Amino acid sequence: MPLVVQKYGGTSVGDADRIRAVADHVARTRREGKDVVVVVSAMGKTTDDLIRLADEVSSVQPPREYDMLVSAGERISTALLCMALADLGVAASSFTGSQAGIVTDTDHTKAKIVEIRATRLTEALAEGKVPVVAGFQGVSTERDVTTLGRGASDLTAVALAAVLGAAACEIYTDVTGVFSADPRVVPDAHRLGRVSFEEMLEISAAGGQVLQLRSAEFARNHHVPLQVRSSFTWEPGTWIVEEDASMEQAVVTAVIHTTSQAKVTVSGVPDRPGIAARLFRALADRSVNVDDVVQNTSVHGTTDISFTVPRTDLQTAVDVAEALSGELGATAVHSDRGVAKVSVIGAGMRSHPGVTATMFETLAGEGINIDMISTSTIRISCVVRGDDVERAVRALHGAFELA
Amino acid sequence: MPLVVQKYGGTSVGDADRIRAVADHVARTRREGKDVVVVVSAMGKTTDDLIRLADEVSSVQPPREYDMLVSAGERISTALLCMALADLGVAASSFTGSQAGIVTDTDHTKAKIVEIRATRLTEALAEGKVPVVAGFQGVSTERDVTTLGRGASDLTAVALAAVLGAAACEIYTDVTGVFSADPRVVPDAHRLGRVSFEEMLEISAAGGQVLQLRSAEFARNHHVPLQVRSSFTWEPGTWIVEEDASMEQAVVTAVIHTTSQAKVTVSGVPDRPGIAARLFRALADRSVNVDDVVQNTSVHGTTDISFTVPRTDLQTAVDVAEALSGELGATAVHSDRGVAKVSVIGAGMRSHPGVTATMFETLAGEGINIDMISTSTIRISCVVRGDDVERAVRALHGAFELA
Repeated sequence: MPLVVQKYGGTSVGDADRIRAVADHVARTRREGKDVVVVVSAMGKTTDDLIRLADEVSSVQPPREYDMLVSAGERISTALLCMALADLGVAASSFTGSQAGIVTDTDHTKAKIVEIRATRLTEALAEGKVPVVAGFQGVSTERDVTTLGRGASDLTAVALAAVLGAAACEIYTDVTGVFSADPRVVPDAHRLGRVSFEEMLEISAAGGQVLQLRSAEFARNHHVPLQVRSSFTWEPGTWIVEEDASMEQAVVTAVIHTTSQAKVTVSGVPDRPGIAARLFRALADRSVNVDDVVQNTSVHGTTDISFTVPRTDLQTAVDVAEALSGELGATAVHSDRGVAKVSVIGAGMRSHPGVTATMFETLAGEGINIDMISTSTIRISCVVRGDDVERAVRALHGAFELA
Repeated sequence: MPLVVQKYGGTSVGDADRIRAVADHVARTRREGKDVVVVVSAMGKTTDDLIRLADEVSSVQPPREYDMLVSAGERISTALLCMALADLGVAASSFTGSQAGIVTDTDHTKAKIVEIRATRLTEALAEGKVPVVAGFQGVSTERDVTTLGRGASDLTAVALAAVLGAAACEIYTDVTGVFSADPRVVPDAHRLGRVSFEEMLEISAAGGQVLQLRSAEFARNHHVPLQVRSSFTWEPGTWIVEEDASMEQAVVTAVIHTTSQAKVTVSGVPDRPGIAARLFRALADRSVNVDDVVQNTSVHGTTDISFTVPRTDLQTAVDVAEALSGELGATAVHSDRGVAKVSVIGAGMRSHPGVTATMFETLAGEGINIDMISTSTIRISCVVRGDDVERAVRALHGAFELA
């Protein structure tokens, strides 16, 4: 029987009714003649509630204990889903990350999977059962409970799909798929039937919330066909697949924006080797997640280095930059919370050099100033004023005829 | 260093403040030069909430999944307590039942401990850490999560104290110890400084809520000195110890009552071998927890069999008895929810034959009718009308001069 891995996120199992709806869909998939392995997140805001409780209890939160705490929510949803399946006559068994054989390194709160020993899952499948696996967690080589980072239930699903040789990995969520732009901003945005892994990676990196970047990378590297679908409407969603010649090569596939960023500029830095390295090593040591970096050409022997970070990391980034400014010889550190980023993404861009020009012309036509620019082979991103970004998205969506 | 095992119940870790108070007490115990192993229950009503959620999701609740579900609460409290300890500079590590090496049989929801492999706990102690263990749970010989039955966090604590050779096992709860009677009913009831294991077993069996019966039995069999104390006032509580010649042998130590029972009478049963066996096997097969049984002397070849059960089991018990009444040749099955039981308990009773007479005289003096009587060597119990029981407790507490 073909095997599918189905992953259900927190809103998909948010209450008793949702859990029963998921069980019904799993039962339906079985009746279609497929074996199913299910991966679930914690119900709704369970994990956030646990984190809030930890904050109330202590300002010191050893990572090992943090993982023990926040992994509890997924156990609850696995057991409840198995009960709902039992109610429908479908034999199912819950598995913690540890029981599912997801062995990780010892880097608590953001552990990496080092091995998957899925014996218990294959045994359960052989017995005709539906294994229901707690997402987001594993067991370390030191036999401690680990978690794989926020949103990593997707990764659990993709990794299990890879190791079990699943025909597909279906990621069920509260949106119906990947869109050509955020439908809240662009009313005529449309759902994409298929995107390539490369495009999906750029969409995730540019701020698209649908799929965790790490999971998309893992799926690409292990050739796992992915589908993003809604567990509320159950309609066909978006397939994320390997690029092939038969795929329509749209020049631009999607316009993605994010408003959760801030910009830091370190000015008047002497233009000599090692300065940037010193700064970005210090930022990395404090776990600041640097997104785009731009360094202007040197004028009179000094230069400005600008970079964007998630807004939540801004204060740390500024602290690091200011502490280093003497050592770096910088004249000033500026920060700006009022920025946003808009990106156009499309695999067809590789063979269509005019895209950059169209993008800049479109923004100029709207009177929108570009603050920073960065590009990859299939993406062009512009940092603009936060107030301008929705207008930018609508204009670009129109200019590239995505409606 | 001497080792103590401290167990904190659900109300003792009911919120962030309570968890910090517990951490403070554990830190204090460490400063007194003792090694500590902590066992915790789930916070407040967490487990009840999970059970309610399960009822919302499904009427079918496979025991294996039930155990996966309800064991989640203790994981949460272990992690939070370790964080609170870290905040006080005390190194601590949380352990699930499985990680603590509590190996059970596969009888889900009421598993028996078959072995404790406490290697990880002794390693943590050797590293100067406080191991914090999730109570109430273990891992089966089939590597599934099991639970040991409601209230069994006490058992986890006592069993760990036995296997680790602890000097004492301290059970922290929301009462200050074992009382000569329920202080809500008898205002001048006093806290007992010491009771023998035998008395404690009878107190638990008679309906005293302080300590789980199974845990008291385990402690007695493994010679674990137990103390019941309050985690709200921290005052000295009640020691439960082996009986020895130096102990004051009060004739009556405590008057215990319970109102959670109901009575079933199967009337007109032919008085021949095997009838009672047939009935009580059928009740056991339905997991009805029969308490006292009384069978009257046969008159005219038939007899009445009466027994008490927890009120929650009454309907099942009546169903079983009625289904069997034809086979048994019974003329009627009666049930009565309006009963209660009052017991006087005391190790000194063995050498004071007048206790039974005093008890009956006291009840008669109050005009209280006795419905059923049962005795052990250190306990006399009477089933009376529920409306009479508090008056009976007060009268007996006075008659045996327990004030």
